Amino acid sequence: MRIIPVALIPGDGIGPEVVAEAQRVLDQVARMSGRFRFQYRSFDWSCQYYLAHGKMMPDDGLKILQDFEAIFLGAVGFPPVPDHVSLWGLLLPIRREFDQYVNLRPVKLLRGIESPLREVAPGEIDFIVIRENTEGEYSNSGGRLRQGTPQEVVVQNAVFTRYGTERVIRYAFERAVHSRQHVTSATKSNGLNFSMPFWDEVFRSVGQAYPQVKQELYHIDALAAYFVTRPKSFDVVVASNLFGDILTDLGGAITGGIGIAPSANINPEKRYPSMFEPVHGSAPDIAGRGIANPIGQIWTGALMLEHFGLMAEAELLIDAIEATLLDGVKTPDLGGRHTTRDVTDHIIQRLTA
Amino acid sequence: MRIIPVALIPGDGIGPEVVAEAQRVLDQVARMSGRFRFQYRSFDWSCQYYLAHGKMMPDDGLKILQDFEAIFLGAVGFPPVPDHVSLWGLLLPIRREFDQYVNLRPVKLLRGIESPLREVAPGEIDFIVIRENTEGEYSNSGGRLRQGTPQEVVVQNAVFTRYGTERVIRYAFERAVHSRQHVTSATKSNGLNFSMPFWDEVFRSVGQAYPQVKQELYHIDALAAYFVTRPKSFDVVVASNLFGDILTDLGGAITGGIGIAPSANINPEKRYPSMFEPVHGSAPDIAGRGIANPIGQIWTGALMLEHFGLMAEAELLIDAIEATLLDGVKTPDLGGRHTTRDVTDHIIQRLTA
Ligand SMILES: CC(C)[C@H](C(=O)O)[C@@H](O)C(=O)O
Ligand SMILES: CC(C)[C@H](C(=O)O)[C@@H](O)C(=O)O
Repeated sequence: MRIIPVALIPGDGIGPEVVAEAQRVLDQVARMSGRFRFQYRSFDWSCQYYLAHGKMMPDDGLKILQDFEAIFLGAVGFPPVPDHVSLWGLLLPIRREFDQYVNLRPVKLLRGIESPLREVAPGEIDFIVIRENTEGEYSNSGGRLRQGTPQEVVVQNAVFTRYGTERVIRYAFERAVHSRQHVTSATKSNGLNFSMPFWDEVFRSVGQAYPQVKQELYHIDALAAYFVTRPKSFDVVVASNLFGDILTDLGGAITGGIGIAPSANINPEKRYPSMFEPVHGSAPDIAGRGIANPIGQIWTGALMLEHFGLMAEAELLIDAIEATLLDGVKTPDLGGRHTTRDVTDHIIQRLTA
Repeated sequence: MRIIPVALIPGDGIGPEVVAEAQRVLDQVARMSGRFRFQYRSFDWSCQYYLAHGKMMPDDGLKILQDFEAIFLGAVGFPPVPDHVSLWGLLLPIRREFDQYVNLRPVKLLRGIESPLREVAPGEIDFIVIRENTEGEYSNSGGRLRQGTPQEVVVQNAVFTRYGTERVIRYAFERAVHSRQHVTSATKSNGLNFSMPFWDEVFRSVGQAYPQVKQELYHIDALAAYFVTRPKSFDVVVASNLFGDILTDLGGAITGGIGIAPSANINPEKRYPSMFEPVHGSAPDIAGRGIANPIGQIWTGALMLEHFGLMAEAELLIDAIEATLLDGVKTPDLGGRHTTRDVTDHIIQRLTA
């Protein structure tokens, strides 16, 4: 049996609630599988930690994490700590230092979920977004001149490298080869006239090695609109850091809300641990009330299983999630009246049924 | 009677087709009103022009336009001229040199149009997006190092000034004061950690002068999702250049497609001409076939009427557009079988009915 060391970072707000529930589910999957076990160690790094220590994690935080094969994270962010502090102190350094250059986010309408889109039935939306996760618009580079004066000028630099752009686009093509042979790239070469013409060049040049794969480019504004007007037409969508961020929240919206959407931050070479976190945030407004939707975190657990090649286990888990939704066991964000715990209990029951 | 000099730039693709139709409609409105007349002069600046002259407009193009009170533009862009060439050679210089810092885009579900969103009925989506139009992410600033090599690095700079940010946010608040007292601002202060914390500071500081106005900030990813999950909750949305671009296409998508959505590029001080152009592009795939939807261009004409204080005339025109849609006279993009000309004829008939 394979023992897989996993670092837990429950984080803030609803993070600890949904991580605990996801753990219960994953443990049940492990028991049933017999092929693996997750060995957890939990870290209290969070905004709470920041208020006590003046930093989001200890100075050797990344070094500590390096001994794990995966990081299973809830959500980070809680007032009064400003977002850009909490994120650049924890989440974003992990993504970058561990070279998790692929942010993989399925956009899939589960059975039992009604899309807000009129013409869409369950099963009809099923694609993935591959988001670049280590550079681009989230460069942490820029500055403010004459701060606070009427003459203030603020610069934010987006930094793209051929190295970083090529590898994520190649990953998207490789996924498409094992999927429906179709890659759609998000651009904005008309307005962003240095970075995006470059992105398109790389897309075209990497694409030459995949003549069998259908290749399309759309400007991000049009592509966002297409997520609403023809979401059935995608297979693999590849996008820069910021564009991928926007598209995946939108992907969440058309498939039942970001309470459900899962996400994986992957270092494909497995040189560093990968991190698994739901798309949703810490939702301070509903924290502690026992009504947070655990499905985003649990589905994220399924992505972690896939990452370790546990495909049958991942499928079993997604089937149990869908069965639970079809049974109408849902938290309030999905129009239901059930608690976080009800949903988890039902998923566990469906797993064993 | 007021004579208003208007420069026409029909542009490329379907641009000339829809501009000609919109002119017929506007002339009819003028005849019925008796208060004004548009005096047109037409310019053939376009990608066609570029292929002949190596530039999108003559060197003194902007100087020529300066003598007009408005520019009525169709669409720019046609293969093989790359987008970033055609836009930075015509559209974007006009927006910037004429300091059209407000890009105003209504997001309104017209009667006769079915939203792709399940829970939305006509009349229920009705808000405007105020997009910053002269700086920010569309800075035309950046560069490429070691171009074409594996070591290539590309930088795109977003440049925000307090001057530019303050004035557009203030404009949004002023609109809200005459509307439903609610401004929503698009941010991304967590990922874009120089520009967007600054944007938020300015939003909060300008907002202090408007205590009666409800003020909200959302990250662009969440806000894009809210356009789908709760589009009825907005009044005035204010956003940077890129974020406004994405949100307005999305706004088009939830209200029946960008074939309809209008847009105004306004210099509020009227020191320079303002430019009126639909949100849609030149649609090379359907150009010349007589099936382009003229409503985006015609509704854009209504925004031009409003800009000149011709409120009753604008209202009359929008009523005629809605009547036409309710009569089921629609082009193929809206599921109809009518031609560009059918739609225009019907609008003119409804105007005079
Ligand atoms: C064509 C392009 C540069 C333009 C923009 O992004 O501003 C268009 O998308 C728009 O919204 O007017
Ligand atoms: C919290 C924020 C920095 C983050 C991002 O934009 O990457 C989040 O929106 C996400 O999508 O994971």
